Amino acid sequence: MQVGVDYYPEHWDESLWAADIQLMKETGVKVVRVAEFAWSRLEPREGFFDFAWLDRAMELFHQYGLQVVIGTPTATPPRWLTTTYPDVLPVFADGQTFHPGVRGHRCYNSASLREYGSRIIEKLARHYSGHPAVIGWQTDNEFGMIDCHCKTCYEAFRSWVRQKYGTLENVNTAWGTVVWSGEYSDWNELTVPLGGSPFQNPSFLLDFQRFQWDSVVRFQKTQIDSLRRICPEHFITHNFHSYPQRLDMYAVGTDLDVAAFDYYPNTSPDKQETTPYSGALSLDVTRGIKRQNFWIMEQLSGSPGCWMPMWRTPYPGFIRAYAWQAIARGADTIVHFRWRSAVAGAEQYWHGLIDHSNVPGRRFAEFSQLCGEVNGLSGRLQGTVLKHEVAILHSHEQKAALDIQPQAQGLDYYENIKQAHRALTKLGIGCDVIRAGEPLDGYKVVIAPSLYVLGETLAEQLEAYAAAGGVLILTNRSGVKDSNNICVMQPLPGLLSRAAGVRVGEYDPVGLEVHTLVDPEGNSFECSQWCDLLTPVTAVPVAWYGDDFYAGIPAVTVNSFGKGQVYYFGTHAEERYWSLLLADLAGKYGVTRFAGLPDGVQATIRSGENGSFLFLLNLNRMPQTVPLPGSYSSVLCNGEIRSGELQMEAYGVEILELAE
Amino acid sequence: MQVGVDYYPEHWDESLWAADIQLMKETGVKVVRVAEFAWSRLEPREGFFDFAWLDRAMELFHQYGLQVVIGTPTATPPRWLTTTYPDVLPVFADGQTFHPGVRGHRCYNSASLREYGSRIIEKLARHYSGHPAVIGWQTDNEFGMIDCHCKTCYEAFRSWVRQKYGTLENVNTAWGTVVWSGEYSDWNELTVPLGGSPFQNPSFLLDFQRFQWDSVVRFQKTQIDSLRRICPEHFITHNFHSYPQRLDMYAVGTDLDVAAFDYYPNTSPDKQETTPYSGALSLDVTRGIKRQNFWIMEQLSGSPGCWMPMWRTPYPGFIRAYAWQAIARGADTIVHFRWRSAVAGAEQYWHGLIDHSNVPGRRFAEFSQLCGEVNGLSGRLQGTVLKHEVAILHSHEQKAALDIQPQAQGLDYYENIKQAHRALTKLGIGCDVIRAGEPLDGYKVVIAPSLYVLGETLAEQLEAYAAAGGVLILTNRSGVKDSNNICVMQPLPGLLSRAAGVRVGEYDPVGLEVHTLVDPEGNSFECSQWCDLLTPVTAVPVAWYGDDFYAGIPAVTVNSFGKGQVYYFGTHAEERYWSLLLADLAGKYGVTRFAGLPDGVQATIRSGENGSFLFLLNLNRMPQTVPLPGSYSSVLCNGEIRSGELQMEAYGVEILELAE
Amino acid sequence: MQVGVDYYPEHWDESLWAADIQLMKETGVKVVRVAEFAWSRLEPREGFFDFAWLDRAMELFHQYGLQVVIGTPTATPPRWLTTTYPDVLPVFADGQTFHPGVRGHRCYNSASLREYGSRIIEKLARHYSGHPAVIGWQTDNEFGMIDCHCKTCYEAFRSWVRQKYGTLENVNTAWGTVVWSGEYSDWNELTVPLGGSPFQNPSFLLDFQRFQWDSVVRFQKTQIDSLRRICPEHFITHNFHSYPQRLDMYAVGTDLDVAAFDYYPNTSPDKQETTPYSGALSLDVTRGIKRQNFWIMEQLSGSPGCWMPMWRTPYPGFIRAYAWQAIARGADTIVHFRWRSAVAGAEQYWHGLIDHSNVPGRRFAEFSQLCGEVNGLSGRLQGTVLKHEVAILHSHEQKAALDIQPQAQGLDYYENIKQAHRALTKLGIGCDVIRAGEPLDGYKVVIAPSLYVLGETLAEQLEAYAAAGGVLILTNRSGVKDSNNICVMQPLPGLLSRAAGVRVGEYDPVGLEVHTLVDPEGNSFECSQWCDLLTPVTAVPVAWYGDDFYAGIPAVTVNSFGKGQVYYFGTHAEERYWSLLLADLAGKYGVTRFAGLPDGVQATIRSGENGSFLFLLNLNRMPQTVPLPGSYSSVLCNGEIRSGELQMEAYGVEILELAE
Repeated sequence: MQVGVDYYPEHWDESLWAADIQLMKETGVKVVRVAEFAWSRLEPREGFFDFAWLDRAMELFHQYGLQVVIGTPTATPPRWLTTTYPDVLPVFADGQTFHPGVRGHRCYNSASLREYGSRIIEKLARHYSGHPAVIGWQTDNEFGMIDCHCKTCYEAFRSWVRQKYGTLENVNTAWGTVVWSGEYSDWNELTVPLGGSPFQNPSFLLDFQRFQWDSVVRFQKTQIDSLRRICPEHFITHNFHSYPQRLDMYAVGTDLDVAAFDYYPNTSPDKQETTPYSGALSLDVTRGIKRQNFWIMEQLSGSPGCWMPMWRTPYPGFIRAYAWQAIARGADTIVHFRWRSAVAGAEQYWHGLIDHSNVPGRRFAEFSQLCGEVNGLSGRLQGTVLKHEVAILHSHEQKAALDIQPQAQGLDYYENIKQAHRALTKLGIGCDVIRAGEPLDGYKVVIAPSLYVLGETLAEQLEAYAAAGGVLILTNRSGVKDSNNICVMQPLPGLLSRAAGVRVGEYDPVGLEVHTLVDPEGNSFECSQWCDLLTPVTAVPVAWYGDDFYAGIPAVTVNSFGKGQVYYFGTHAEERYWSLLLADLAGKYGVTRFAGLPDGVQATIRSGENGSFLFLLNLNRMPQTVPLPGSYSSVLCNGEIRSGELQMEAYGVEILELAE
Repeated sequence: MQVGVDYYPEHWDESLWAADIQLMKETGVKVVRVAEFAWSRLEPREGFFDFAWLDRAMELFHQYGLQVVIGTPTATPPRWLTTTYPDVLPVFADGQTFHPGVRGHRCYNSASLREYGSRIIEKLARHYSGHPAVIGWQTDNEFGMIDCHCKTCYEAFRSWVRQKYGTLENVNTAWGTVVWSGEYSDWNELTVPLGGSPFQNPSFLLDFQRFQWDSVVRFQKTQIDSLRRICPEHFITHNFHSYPQRLDMYAVGTDLDVAAFDYYPNTSPDKQETTPYSGALSLDVTRGIKRQNFWIMEQLSGSPGCWMPMWRTPYPGFIRAYAWQAIARGADTIVHFRWRSAVAGAEQYWHGLIDHSNVPGRRFAEFSQLCGEVNGLSGRLQGTVLKHEVAILHSHEQKAALDIQPQAQGLDYYENIKQAHRALTKLGIGCDVIRAGEPLDGYKVVIAPSLYVLGETLAEQLEAYAAAGGVLILTNRSGVKDSNNICVMQPLPGLLSRAAGVRVGEYDPVGLEVHTLVDPEGNSFECSQWCDLLTPVTAVPVAWYGDDFYAGIPAVTVNSFGKGQVYYFGTHAEERYWSLLLADLAGKYGVTRFAGLPDGVQATIRSGENGSFLFLLNLNRMPQTVPLPGSYSSVLCNGEIRSGELQMEAYGVEILELAE
Repeated sequence: MQVGVDYYPEHWDESLWAADIQLMKETGVKVVRVAEFAWSRLEPREGFFDFAWLDRAMELFHQYGLQVVIGTPTATPPRWLTTTYPDVLPVFADGQTFHPGVRGHRCYNSASLREYGSRIIEKLARHYSGHPAVIGWQTDNEFGMIDCHCKTCYEAFRSWVRQKYGTLENVNTAWGTVVWSGEYSDWNELTVPLGGSPFQNPSFLLDFQRFQWDSVVRFQKTQIDSLRRICPEHFITHNFHSYPQRLDMYAVGTDLDVAAFDYYPNTSPDKQETTPYSGALSLDVTRGIKRQNFWIMEQLSGSPGCWMPMWRTPYPGFIRAYAWQAIARGADTIVHFRWRSAVAGAEQYWHGLIDHSNVPGRRFAEFSQLCGEVNGLSGRLQGTVLKHEVAILHSHEQKAALDIQPQAQGLDYYENIKQAHRALTKLGIGCDVIRAGEPLDGYKVVIAPSLYVLGETLAEQLEAYAAAGGVLILTNRSGVKDSNNICVMQPLPGLLSRAAGVRVGEYDPVGLEVHTLVDPEGNSFECSQWCDLLTPVTAVPVAWYGDDFYAGIPAVTVNSFGKGQVYYFGTHAEERYWSLLLADLAGKYGVTRFAGLPDGVQATIRSGENGSFLFLLNLNRMPQTVPLPGSYSSVLCNGEIRSGELQMEAYGVEILELAE
């Protein structure tokens, strides 16, 4: 467990390097990421390589005992490359080129990018494979979907489709192209979705997304193959960023040793009620990519800004508390972005730990405290992990399909996941956020929001999970589509009907309107987005609509299925309803829970051979009081004993050792 | 009088056809529209025609006694056509191509579209001219203006201008191109309005609109000529949609036997105060296209959606009530869109009568009731029509000219028509909405909002109408422009000054500001948009401004002109003012009126040889009470007698026979 | 001192000319601007010139004793030119052409425009150099930045960069292109900023702006060189419009004899609290371009409109009062736009003094009164100028740099200048608004908002100003960047640290949030946008933050520097705080002030050999009372004596002679 920084030797006069690196050493920094945007320095002209400057920086890192992760520089192809080989540049749906001068200007399918990217990566890998400071690699930087529409992608997409479906007849059937006379009679009629019209065939659009996702994975695979071959001792990671991403993070993660995340929690006091929870979800999503601990490759160090107005500066304690939050949820290394704010270029106001003036200030002092704390606890926390009894299923594919065809105003796949996750987090119940389709062993409760596009394998797995005694919570818009994004010709929830024991008689896309949900005790709750009018088959109702023409009709049901229970939410209930239900389930099924958390305070447990550690974080500008259920020793404060009402200051952090 | 459905045999496995058509038959469906998007099935490859599948469907329709309308498939050119002949595709003002993969991707002037469109239509026409089930044709689908900027349109526009004006000198004069040095010195300088800048010459822009309108008419004419030649026994229609449309509906309608409308009233409860009235106007506009009864070719059957969030599901009774509203205002056939929701393609969530599951539900039951009722009353209602004493003049040209040069914030030509129409409808006064220039015989009152672009013929016709005893209501922004969209050099209302007997001294575009209007009794009303400061010449004031520097200046005048009266509204008065004035005029001139309608309830009368029938429709989620002026027999309820206070349930429908 | 009109002979039938010009004469019009959009009439085809029509108009002007300013017609290249030489047309960042059919469709670097523009200008100049009516020229019309991205601009920009920096190595260093691998290795990689992404290098973007500014200056210089050579007796001006403009007005102005402004104060009553002040600033900015009196080349004469909804018509008195405001702030000639509203073309609703009907009305009568008044006072006011003791520094470069990298929500360079200027104007303190870098002799107080990009010369000048006894007010975001738009590596305010005697320890971009400022008396004020946390070095605090984690930290400081005082505002204080401080400074340093002005009333003084004249203008719809400090003779009202409480009607104007 360690703290690091992102450092760009190429941004600074070489005379500054030694002092910078010495200060890193003194502050307790252990690891540095370098070079992910340095292609033009590493290969200033085609075929002319210059690693000497990086060698000198590496020598200094090594001299001061810092370990180094090198980023492959493909996210910023240099100008000589894009000028000579313009096929590197992506093309938007409107035919416009993604021009150089920025970053991310690369088509994942470009042959030139593959060729020249591989060459620089292999050169780098060979050069640093034996360097004593180097421990690993980051592929590219923050993969994102550009949805390139260039000629290469045309061809690649056609091949992809042909490989998937074999014949045009199959394509026409799978996509239902007969609607609006869109049938293909010749392969050359098949293009990428030009023009960007939302009126295009949704099956085609989803397959185009899948193709683009695959393109990223294939692009990364080329890099990984080189790195594994040349540097078999080094680990490989990639830094994901801001969720939700239209990206198959799971497939990208499969080829990695460890996942990483770039974590920029919002500093605005206006967001302080939501930031701790959306941040917690981001971290849990990252942990779920490979279902193991992860890295933070860029951690907030100051106010972001540049092309947008700057954010608020982090409140005192904010930087440290959010770094600890990342650790509390499974990060083993926290690399801060960045050592010092850039004085040139487009990221001048994406503030680092040290300001442009190069005078370390309040934020650096806080970082320094963090380094000391992490280094002090590193030994005890090493090897600890999070173990949970609740899982939320997450799927980039559901998000993409629901974006292609918005169901109702306000119905947002990821926001709905956020709500369920927030309810759990506020209840003090830890959960994993994993890919739909992952094994579910060990989970007492599984929440599966809107399994909109649903194949038989997943449906059967969920049935088996419930039958074996699990509690499964389904929501509206499940089982609507087959894997071709075609509506199923059966009553909803389609393939989940048997498990849910319920039939959707009809539905009402109420959108932003607020409707009423009533429970058996007569309590009223708000609901919105969608109202399935439910006909229980084997299920029993547990909530009913309270208004409109369907007042009295079941809205939420539960079905005993094998040894388990399957809940079906026909509507989007407010968080309070989720909280009551989840608290009830936690009690009934003995789910571990830290009760009594005030707003903004989060609790998680990391356990391992050295013990179990309870992290309590007050991610709030107000001091908070947390009722402790027992007496514990504070790992962070020299073993001081904490019991009764724990007073936590603004952005306070406490780590308590739990008894065996 | 009959009910039908839109059915797409090509969307469904052939094994479903027979059951579908049998259920149509049993439900009381009489007519089916087919094939308007089926080009790729009818001609899967260039020159290779396949009508066999449609023959089989036709055979089933015929077998079950259903009549069929065939749509010409030109709204969705197949991919082989657009790939081989890309001139089919329109080009936007920014040079972007309207790419295939959607619908409506066709340039009305494309030579290839004309050629291949004509060929498939002639083949279809010959093939089905003698088919016993086929009764008529729909041209294309929902004509709309794409304002194509392709090279063909360049050339066609030049020819159009040359034909209209003869010489460039005439063009320069007619358009006033000298302003900003825009004079043409060579025909090749004359292009379509590239770039889409709003700063372009308004005379040029209006003529470009007229050219585009003509292009649609010419495009349709080619189709109609073929159909009339080959199928002289069949009728021809076109399905117009959502008004206002930038389209010369009247010229399109001239070549048709009957007009049709695609009617999708908004299902949102938030809109329930406006939807019944904007819907009523749409129906009256459609009836005015050919001044005769019409068809609904697509009637709302469920929640629309797909590329947008879905709407609310129709409230119980909504589907039936709005179908009856269409009949009450002149529809003779109601074709519901669509039989069953599509499971594939871009329109999956534009819900049909039956859901994807193929289990008929609540909406289908309501449709079934409707079919029974219409079939039961068909004989009595056959041949009945609406006859009114009030007309509103409508003009696509005024709308286009006012869109090119917005006069004031909030001044919206069609919205102002809506207000006048709503005032009449709430008063229980039926009216016709007809093209400016139509004969006005029989009308006691004619409302002519903003005759902004005005030629002498229309001005003279209106003078003659008033002189002969009519009541004519003019509003501000009349007589401003000549037919070249050039401002007239005379005091406003220009050519209408004599009839109005008033002079606009100056004007104030007050926009969204609310100003005050005062009547002779001292009552105050809100006014907005525009304030003409009026100087009565022969007219007398009937309302004055109540504020700003023109407090006390006349705002509304009336002029005795020959045997008639001409009102001039210098400002946009609130609906309450219109209601008082129109009620007063109705009393004074004996205009038929159904008094006492509560909000949301509409009354119309259809009369014919079989009698006169009063339709009362409660288009509201609340029950309403309607005071009946006498005692009537309910045609819908077996002749039960209704008198006194008629209780109408939510979305209730009542049809009463009026005494001779 | 005189009044004029913009007149377009080419827009009107020649039969109207004589009556128009005779009426001008009778009304008191002295000067006319013509021909700035008449290229297609002056040169209808390439190389075919026709000045005969203009000769006839000129003859009439001369006959009636009117003087004429001719506009060079380059703002509207004719169609034959753009068709034959399409390089005249600018290209946007997305590759789209700026199509003809509008105005301003000209690339300042186009070789064809230079060639054909020079030719028509030289022909015109030779033709009218000796004409007795002609007195001067206007270059082009309302220069604005199009930021052309055409091939010519590519090449020109490369040359400009090469000339500025010599080598690519220097470019790479100056711009810091190493960030994101943006280094140039060959000149052909250097393009204009294609694609318009905000993520581009800010140093590159600022230099591209500078290049575009220079392009305008070079373009105008070509015209001026011709005119000076051929018409040495004539003056040359240019009509600037609506500030802020991304334009180097100062460099454009350097080559002119006199600056001109097109003044369209907002007529909306909703804006009547701000329009008088933003208008005053525009006039002061214009006076500052050359630091001398100026012309209004287009003065509001009626409601603007056309491509946008029309504005309110000017309230009675508005036209006259705002013309007097322009004179009161340094205009010596007021040319009204336009004589009569155009009946054709895109500017039909940009209303002139006379309406389309050609019947002079209320607005014309007001103009007529103005002409009489100005002609009556012309002799006495001739040669008078404004002299002030306070200056605000203004810089197009700061605005551009701050637009490239927005600092915080709500932080708007020009709006912040507006606030300081409004505070002064309401206090009755006149001020000059001049280019940063201008000599500051004679100013007691200099306000220098956000000197964000700062070179040593300016920093030294300001130090010298303060050291010599001046009061200098600096604000946050000063000294942040060097002239390459690179952040300085020193504590802020960088080069101004010594003068300000303060160090910015850290900062918080609070944006739209409202925070608290507390003065020594404990009064609270709102502050927003930005909070520098100040560490006084030699300065003393004069206000502190009242909230957040920096409550109690200094927010505003003052430093005794040499004989002067330097204030530093670490935050954006509300106007009330500025008013108190400025009033205090005015008292302390004896700055001339007209105290007691009610809202909307403005006071300025013009002085010269004939005396000093106090202009009092009520730019408000309500009558106002102004306390006069003495007894004065009214120049406007035949020397009537005014004293005590001066009652001013809505839009009232008073001009009082001040004792020597």
